[in-house]
Amino acid sequence: MDKQFRKAKSLNEIIELCKRRGFIFHSSEIYGGMQGIYDYGPLGVELKNNLKQSWWKEIVHKRDDVEGLDSAILTHCLTLRYSQHESTFSDPMVDCKKCKSRFRADKVTDNKCIDCGSQELSDIRQFNLMFKCAFGALEEKGNYAYLRPETAQSIFINFKNILDSTSRKIPFGIAQIGKAFRNEITARNFIFRTREFEQMEIEFFVEKGDDEKWHQHWIEERLSWWKEQGLSEENLRLFKQPKEELSHYAKATVDILYKFPHGFDEIEGIANRADFDLGSHSRENHNLNLDSKVMENVDSTIILSTKNNQGENIIPFVIEPSAGVDRGILAILVEAYTRETLNDGNERIVLKLKPHLAPYKLAIIPLARNNEKIVNKAKALTNAIKKMGIGRIKYEDSGNIGKSYRRHDEIGTPYCITVDFQTFEDEDETVTVRERDSMLQKRIPIEKLLHNLKRSSTILDFDCFEILEL
Amino acid sequence: MDKQFRKAKSLNEIIELCKRRGFIFHSSEIYGGMQGIYDYGPLGVELKNNLKQSWWKEIVHKRDDVEGLDSAILTHCLTLRYSQHESTFSDPMVDCKKCKSRFRADKVTDNKCIDCGSQELSDIRQFNLMFKCAFGALEEKGNYAYLRPETAQSIFINFKNILDSTSRKIPFGIAQIGKAFRNEITARNFIFRTREFEQMEIEFFVEKGDDEKWHQHWIEERLSWWKEQGLSEENLRLFKQPKEELSHYAKATVDILYKFPHGFDEIEGIANRADFDLGSHSRENHNLNLDSKVMENVDSTIILSTKNNQGENIIPFVIEPSAGVDRGILAILVEAYTRETLNDGNERIVLKLKPHLAPYKLAIIPLARNNEKIVNKAKALTNAIKKMGIGRIKYEDSGNIGKSYRRHDEIGTPYCITVDFQTFEDEDETVTVRERDSMLQKRIPIEKLLHNLKRSSTILDFDCFEILEL
Repeated sequence: MDKQFRKAKSLNEIIELCKRRGFIFHSSEIYGGMQGIYDYGPLGVELKNNLKQSWWKEIVHKRDDVEGLDSAILTHCLTLRYSQHESTFSDPMVDCKKCKSRFRADKVTDNKCIDCGSQELSDIRQFNLMFKCAFGALEEKGNYAYLRPETAQSIFINFKNILDSTSRKIPFGIAQIGKAFRNEITARNFIFRTREFEQMEIEFFVEKGDDEKWHQHWIEERLSWWKEQGLSEENLRLFKQPKEELSHYAKATVDILYKFPHGFDEIEGIANRADFDLGSHSRENHNLNLDSKVMENVDSTIILSTKNNQGENIIPFVIEPSAGVDRGILAILVEAYTRETLNDGNERIVLKLKPHLAPYKLAIIPLARNNEKIVNKAKALTNAIKKMGIGRIKYEDSGNIGKSYRRHDEIGTPYCITVDFQTFEDEDETVTVRERDSMLQKRIPIEKLLHNLKRSSTILDFDCFEILEL
Repeated sequence: MDKQFRKAKSLNEIIELCKRRGFIFHSSEIYGGMQGIYDYGPLGVELKNNLKQSWWKEIVHKRDDVEGLDSAILTHCLTLRYSQHESTFSDPMVDCKKCKSRFRADKVTDNKCIDCGSQELSDIRQFNLMFKCAFGALEEKGNYAYLRPETAQSIFINFKNILDSTSRKIPFGIAQIGKAFRNEITARNFIFRTREFEQMEIEFFVEKGDDEKWHQHWIEERLSWWKEQGLSEENLRLFKQPKEELSHYAKATVDILYKFPHGFDEIEGIANRADFDLGSHSRENHNLNLDSKVMENVDSTIILSTKNNQGENIIPFVIEPSAGVDRGILAILVEAYTRETLNDGNERIVLKLKPHLAPYKLAIIPLARNNEKIVNKAKALTNAIKKMGIGRIKYEDSGNIGKSYRRHDEIGTPYCITVDFQTFEDEDETVTVRERDSMLQKRIPIEKLLHNLKRSSTILDFDCFEILEL
């Protein structure tokens, strides 16, 4: 079939689909919403879980040199003092003295309040982006904790715990998926820049001298993984941060950029952080002969060192591939979203998600909703497939077959399986398998379908449904 | 083999194992720790993910009547005002006027400060258990958000979004797994009562009149699921809360209790919340003829109603099975932990976890670490199994075979597979499979092992390793 197609013209088309089909909702809408906060709906939670699991399997399960971690969100103030987040993790801000609005200083380009136009603006001040909470019952003693602004710090402070419990030697890494929080002055671009978001971070510990080789290794690994999630080569770009723009802790950083509707922007950063992190959290760190400039640590109870191959105690260098889950989801949705004009003049929206990411793996459709035989067979088939544990399966009896196909095109279901009248005419009880992207259909005996699905596990492939009749 | 065994005498045995083997660490230890906050290490994160996935598959993937959700942790203050958390989610507290310590009032039994013995105590005051954060850049305008004290509220406020995007009709449920936060005055019993914890919650919406039947359904379902996670019948108990102890929103609540070292205590509560929740978050709720006493809602933009079978608009009743992930993990560890005195007088610790929950599914051990042929074969086998995606697999070459077995007994690995000299003597390249609990061993050809593993997927069963030789 010949088809004309186009991608989303703006983010709004994606946002509209996300709300209508239950991928992503603006949080607390019934109370006016919260800026920069989103909830993942029934389809969004499956897509997000699938993406996180794909990462975890690739990084922790497949490799031999990475351990996992799942640490707390509430973080000790000393952790974020010595990481220098307390002193440096901030944006410049100005206040309007007239209407009391507050802006990021770089957004106020002509010295006038964006809200009321007044020129009575305050001096530029630094606004720390961390969320702070009173912690414990003793508020008056000044106990407080932060919501972590990144998952990385809890990896560093657990370095010794993980060494001791796993007997690891460098080079090795620690991986973590989890929520992080930043009180952005201006959250924007849907789930691209939010105040609550999820990260997939690796801290990979190596000996100084091996760091550049490992940095390169991780840049290649990560780029290749994003392609496996469906992002196409022409929409991806590597960006090496210029020396003068590097963060104080970084020796070198390469960002993976994706072509969003708002332009190329970062979905992952891969930084060579040298010995800044383990050095920062070590006691007596001013005697450790570090490469990095750290704050003198008078609180840590431990030196975060390990032995190299020569048996010398060293503070390892760190390579950090740090990816955004939500930004990844947005990139995947942008890439997958397609509007097609079909030969008959009709239009369809199709979400060309990789099968391992699709919220529903399959939809099982009874052709006639009032035919008991067809309905029972379709339900039995649904239950048989559900037992395989290959992901979420939809028993779809909400409308006619054409509408069902369109609905599942729009939410990215790779295959629709239809039980129809011919199912009972064929001796071997065949069903129709329809592929989302090509809209091609095949007939296959139920027994063969079940056998092939079991064999192919979560990695569905249209070839696994052997053609019997077109 | 005849064995004598005993369970853990106290929680300390479990805590010690958890730290030594990398299940659970006290958070921020290098900075003195945070009371009631814990991090899951390399083995803990796998166990926790496995438990959460088991729940999600059971509730969202297998059933036809539940949708998933993954909403934000930062919660609108109005959500928690109308849920009455702002006014009632608190514990009674007293201060010592002398040493400024603070206690839960019910812990101060003899009118003396627990810390300094002073009798100069303050009056009892209510201490709200919610964590509060300034939200957005406009602190002076009083913008704030809470860390959610339960995942439930964000399900209720998304009720209409999910109805609209899925075309659901009652009875149906919404399920969510996620972090929740309570600033407990006294956190205690390891991961049983913590300040940051994870919940697995279902809000199941039904018509009034059907509520008691569905309440019973969920009590049975949930009890049966906990048994499938390995908790034994004699350590589980149902507790029906007496009418006079019920929360203000509950019509009836049944708790599932587990026999912890500190006594029987709750791992899940199944409440009949009537129309309290959807009623509380509806506008004009004083005109809705609700069964429950709610706060008059002057902020919500919507009425959270749906149509029943007769086409009437109703506010559904809610059945809420609410389980604690961390409490579940603790119960599972307590149940699994076994100290055995073997016939030869040696002792072993064995963690009798169900295979689907075990952090490592298999350990592959080369009998001789210096024999290239054995090492290469063991590595090739490890990689072949890893490709199947059945969970985390350990290539174990850290010590002699006896020590490797003990190590994997202690962390609950169900099977150890050893490549030895006989592997190359047998025509069909056999390996040894050793079962954790019985310590029985079998020989099996590699090809058959791979075939059986592929077939059995994540549900490993010793019978799948056909016996060739004992």
